[in-house]
Amino acid sequence: MAHRIAVIAGDGIGTEVMPEGIRVLEAAAKRFNIDLAFTTFEFGSCDYYLEHGKMLPDDWFDQLKGFDALFYGAVGWPDKVPDHISLWGSLLQFRRQFDQYINLRPCRLMPGIKSPLAGRKPGDIDFYVVRENTEGEYSSVGGKMYEGTEREIVIQETVMSRTGVDRVLKYAFDLAQTRPRKKLTSATKSNGISITMPYWDERVAEMAKQYPEIAVDKFHIDILTANFVLHPDWFDVVVGSNLFGDILSDLGPACTGTIGVAPSANINPEGKFPSLFEPVHGSAPDIAGQGIANPIGQIWSGAMMLEHLGYKEAGDAMVEAIEAVLSEGDSQVLTRDVGGQGTTESLGNAIAERI
Amino acid sequence: MAHRIAVIAGDGIGTEVMPEGIRVLEAAAKRFNIDLAFTTFEFGSCDYYLEHGKMLPDDWFDQLKGFDALFYGAVGWPDKVPDHISLWGSLLQFRRQFDQYINLRPCRLMPGIKSPLAGRKPGDIDFYVVRENTEGEYSSVGGKMYEGTEREIVIQETVMSRTGVDRVLKYAFDLAQTRPRKKLTSATKSNGISITMPYWDERVAEMAKQYPEIAVDKFHIDILTANFVLHPDWFDVVVGSNLFGDILSDLGPACTGTIGVAPSANINPEGKFPSLFEPVHGSAPDIAGQGIANPIGQIWSGAMMLEHLGYKEAGDAMVEAIEAVLSEGDSQVLTRDVGGQGTTESLGNAIAERI
Ligand SMILES: CC(C)[C@H](C(=O)O)[C@@H](O)C(=O)O
Ligand SMILES: CC(C)[C@H](C(=O)O)[C@@H](O)C(=O)O
Repeated sequence: MAHRIAVIAGDGIGTEVMPEGIRVLEAAAKRFNIDLAFTTFEFGSCDYYLEHGKMLPDDWFDQLKGFDALFYGAVGWPDKVPDHISLWGSLLQFRRQFDQYINLRPCRLMPGIKSPLAGRKPGDIDFYVVRENTEGEYSSVGGKMYEGTEREIVIQETVMSRTGVDRVLKYAFDLAQTRPRKKLTSATKSNGISITMPYWDERVAEMAKQYPEIAVDKFHIDILTANFVLHPDWFDVVVGSNLFGDILSDLGPACTGTIGVAPSANINPEGKFPSLFEPVHGSAPDIAGQGIANPIGQIWSGAMMLEHLGYKEAGDAMVEAIEAVLSEGDSQVLTRDVGGQGTTESLGNAIAERI
Repeated sequence: MAHRIAVIAGDGIGTEVMPEGIRVLEAAAKRFNIDLAFTTFEFGSCDYYLEHGKMLPDDWFDQLKGFDALFYGAVGWPDKVPDHISLWGSLLQFRRQFDQYINLRPCRLMPGIKSPLAGRKPGDIDFYVVRENTEGEYSSVGGKMYEGTEREIVIQETVMSRTGVDRVLKYAFDLAQTRPRKKLTSATKSNGISITMPYWDERVAEMAKQYPEIAVDKFHIDILTANFVLHPDWFDVVVGSNLFGDILSDLGPACTGTIGVAPSANINPEGKFPSLFEPVHGSAPDIAGQGIANPIGQIWSGAMMLEHLGYKEAGDAMVEAIEAVLSEGDSQVLTRDVGGQGTTESLGNAIAERI
C-alpha cells in the first residue's frame, strides 16, 4: 500500500529545494521498493495568505489528517506577511493540532562541511536535540494592560503540564536507550526561572528512575549554550523545553557548520496524526529565485521521514548519499554555501544518482 | 573622600579570588590616588545560610544601601543549599532591591587565551551584552495546580513593563553611541513568543527613532546564538531580556574562551543604590579549596567597578595589566585553566605588580 505524503513547499527557497527532496526520495523509493504517493498543496505560504487572507483553508485539518506524513519546505516572507502571523497560521498550527509534540534535530559534523569550531572533525560531534514542541514558553496565554501609557505592562505565561513534560522526556530517554553512549542531558534554568524550571527538573529526576541505565545530567541553559561551543563532544541526547530546545537546535547545527543543511522532524509518536518533516533553514528571501539554495536540508528531512515510516535502511542510504557527495567535493555539483559553483538541481541530481 | 566598597566573597572559589581582586584594586588605587575603603561581610554565602537559615540578615538592605559599590565573589553550593534558594536569597535580591536593572558583560578575545572558534584573533571579537536584570522571564508570579496528579500544570508569567524595557534599551543605545561602530543588535523571539516579544520589538523600534545614528538590527534568539558562533565579528552592543541576556552573556564569553575570566556589572545607572560587580564564573565547588582558581574575573570586575566610580583610566590600567600578564605567558604565574602551573595568588600578584 502506498504511503501518502502531503507536500507543502511554502515560501522562498522552500519551493526550490522541495523538488530535489522529492527527487531523492523517489530514487530511494525505487531502490528500496517503497511505494510513496505525493500530493502537493498550495496553502501554507505567504502568497496563499496574500490571496486568501489566511495561511490555510478552513478545512486544512481534514484535508491533511489522513496523510502518513507532511513534507514541508519553508514558511515565512516578512516583507509579505509578518512572521508571527505566517508562522502561527501554518507551521505552529500543524505542530499543535497534529500534536507533534516532539521536535527532533540531529547535530552532526559532516564530511566536507567546515565547522566554525577549531580542531573538530567528523565523528567528534554527533548528538540529537529533542525539543518539546507544543507548550511551554510558546503559549498564547497573556496580554497587555495600561496599553499605550507609561504604565504599560505585558504578560505572557509559560505553561507546562505533567503530560506535556513527561511525554517529551520519555521520548528522549527512549532515544538515549538506543544510542551507544546512553547519555541524556537536560536543559534547565531552575536557578533563575523559579517555578516552571524546578518542575521540569523534578520530572526529569522522576523519569530517570525508570531508566537506570541512562547517565543523566543537567545544565542551566546559559552554561549549556557555552558547553555546546566548548565541549560539543559531551552530548548524546539533549532534551529541552520548547524555547530551550529551539535555541539549542539552532546552536547545535551552527557549531557543526550544518545550519544550512540540517533537517528536522516534528513527530506525533503515536501516529494518531501525521508527522511533519522540514529543513531547519528558513525561506531565505535573500537568495530565493536564484536556484542556488542548498537542498540537503530538504533531502535529509526526507531521510528522517523514511525512517519514521519504518524504512531505516532507506533513510540511512539517503544520508550516506549526502555524505558521499559532500566528501567527493565536486565544485560543479556543490552549491556555493559549501564551496562549489553548482545549483540546487545539480546537487539534488548528484545525490539522487548516488542512490 | 573614600569610596566605600562592601565586600561579599560568598562561596567556594569566591573566597579565593576575592583577596586577589582587592590586592589589584589597592594597587590601582595607590597609583591613581583613589581612596577605597573596603568593608567585609560574611552573609550572602551558603555557610551563612546553614548557620542562620537565611542567606542574608533581615537588615541587609540598610546595612548595604549606603555603600558606593558591592564587590561580590560567587554564590552557590548546591550540596549545601539548592541553587534557587541561595540565588533568590542573595544575588537576585540585590539586583532587584537595589534596582540594578542593567547587567553588563564584555565579550572580547584576550591575548593568551585560546578561543574555541577557528581562526579568530584578538581584535576580531569585541562586543558588550546588555541584559535586562530585574523583570521579564525571571518573575516570581505563577504557581502549580492539580499538584501531584496526572493533570498537574505549572505556570510562570513573563512580565515586561514599558518602564523596564525602555530603560534597558536606553542604556544600550547610549552605550552604542559611545562605540566607534555605533551598532545595536536586539535579541528577540517574536515569531514564536507571540505576546511579550513583539512588544519588545515595538519598544526597540520606538527607541531607535531617538537614535538615528545607531544602526539597529534584530535576530531571533535561536539564530542569534548561531550567529555568535558563526559571525561574532558582527556584534557591537547586543541587548536582550533577562533570560536572553543571561544566555548570550555566557555564550559570548564562551566563544572568546573567556568564560572563566569574564567580569560582569549589575548597575543601577542613576546611582540611587549601589551597583554590584562580580565575575561571571560561579563558585566552582569542584576546584574550590585548592588555590588554583583564576582570579582574573574578579580583578576585571574590579576594573569595571573603578570605571563605574568614575575612574576610567584606572579601570583601563587594570585591564591592560591583565592583558600584559596573559601575553607574557609565564607558566609559573598563570593558573592551569590558561596553561600555567601557578596559583590564584601568583597570578593576582603578577597583575598587581604590573600596576
Ligand atoms: C546564578 C543565576 C541565577 C544567574 C542568572 O541567571 O542571572 C547567573 O547565571 C548570572 O548570569 O548571573
Ligand atoms: C519559525 C519559528 C516560529 C520556529 C520556532 O521557533 O519554533 C523555528 O525557529 C523552528 O525552530 O522551527
